[in-house]
Amino acid sequence: MPSLAGTSAAAPDPEMLTQVSTYPALQRGQFNGDVTYAQLAQDGDFGLGTFSGLDGEMVALDGVFYQISADGTVRVADAAMTTPFADVHFFHSNQQLRISEPLQNLDQLKAFLAKQLPSPNRPYAFRISGTFPTLKYRSVPKQAEPYPALTDAVAKQVVFEAQNIDAVLVGYMLPEYLGGIGRPGFHFHMISADKSRGGHVLDVSASAATVDIDFLESVKLLIPQNATFQGSNFSQPK
Amino acid sequence: MPSLAGTSAAAPDPEMLTQVSTYPALQRGQFNGDVTYAQLAQDGDFGLGTFSGLDGEMVALDGVFYQISADGTVRVADAAMTTPFADVHFFHSNQQLRISEPLQNLDQLKAFLAKQLPSPNRPYAFRISGTFPTLKYRSVPKQAEPYPALTDAVAKQVVFEAQNIDAVLVGYMLPEYLGGIGRPGFHFHMISADKSRGGHVLDVSASAATVDIDFLESVKLLIPQNATFQGSNFSQPK
Repeated sequence: MPSLAGTSAAAPDPEMLTQVSTYPALQRGQFNGDVTYAQLAQDGDFGLGTFSGLDGEMVALDGVFYQISADGTVRVADAAMTTPFADVHFFHSNQQLRISEPLQNLDQLKAFLAKQLPSPNRPYAFRISGTFPTLKYRSVPKQAEPYPALTDAVAKQVVFEAQNIDAVLVGYMLPEYLGGIGRPGFHFHMISADKSRGGHVLDVSASAATVDIDFLESVKLLIPQNATFQGSNFSQPK
Repeated sequence: MPSLAGTSAAAPDPEMLTQVSTYPALQRGQFNGDVTYAQLAQDGDFGLGTFSGLDGEMVALDGVFYQISADGTVRVADAAMTTPFADVHFFHSNQQLRISEPLQNLDQLKAFLAKQLPSPNRPYAFRISGTFPTLKYRSVPKQAEPYPALTDAVAKQVVFEAQNIDAVLVGYMLPEYLGGIGRPGFHFHMISADKSRGGHVLDVSASAATVDIDFLESVKLLIPQNATFQGSNFSQPK
């Protein structure tokens, strides 16, 4: 077959979401990573996830991968660190808009964003920059083997609250038909503008912020080859 | 982040399955293709699928994409033709074995193959070459808009039967957790060694054949951007 003129298999797809492992595997406590951050960086410059052992929250922004530990400290991830779960892509804004009405909480933010989307049937990425009146976020402490289920690990989350914080929310919306592999709906992590604070967003209010939306066109799932994942019965209740 | 030494984003991933659209979309009669065979060939040299309008069965083998029309004729697909649904990858055998026991039907073949697989939690590709005592296969006639549901279109399938036919079965096994996007379980198309016959395999017996199995490690889903797919309510019953 001839190649299409003007296209190249060499170029990374700018509208492709790459996901490491499946959300059902993470829910089952499969926290050992076998994808390095060096590998992950080849698939994106923007995203969210976690670290081997569930050792904190990950935010990727402008090609830098940040680790937010349970004590609230933020550091740049080492290339050799690994992730058991992450969503990343190369961010290119398809649509920019302003939030100018007051949004009281995360549900109102989700509803505001959902109204902007032409369809629920593709993934979208969101980069939301502004000064947020209130922001509630969390990180998680590193877990030891044998790992607990995700809900038991998250029960030990450490919650932080900030007021009038300059920050960027990094998020995705995944369609329902990706429910077997991903986490459908909206999911946000955040990092402060001064890179001193960050985590998984539990709640947020907004009054003025800039939203960039990236419409995604493909999804690449990296399937764990380790014995735990390969030996799981995912049809059994967790 | 530094790049991993020795890897390159330019190389196509040899263990990546690429799927065009979702099986639920195909079931709903979304038969207009918006991926050309030229594009598809960048993601694989082996696979199965169909053509825009459900105009026959597709088999890809050794980098050649074949169209099998409902009248049983086989032709090489034009690069400009499009597909509404396909699974392709670059075939590299990870394991080769011989079928030497008699397998009476497709279910026995599936059971034989399932026993060889170390886990049901990754996709596998199968290339099965031999002389098959019996082989029952079908193709489908091109549909007109407004398209019917897949089951209604397949009700008009044309069935062929062959005896002692030299052929290659081209197939995949997809894990259950891909059920939201793919068709879990085994799925085979076939092409005869002389490239004169082919189609979707309905039944087969085997007594001596060579099986090559390719263990796949990632899945790329190409999400249709057309209005029909984007406007669908996939949570509604078909």
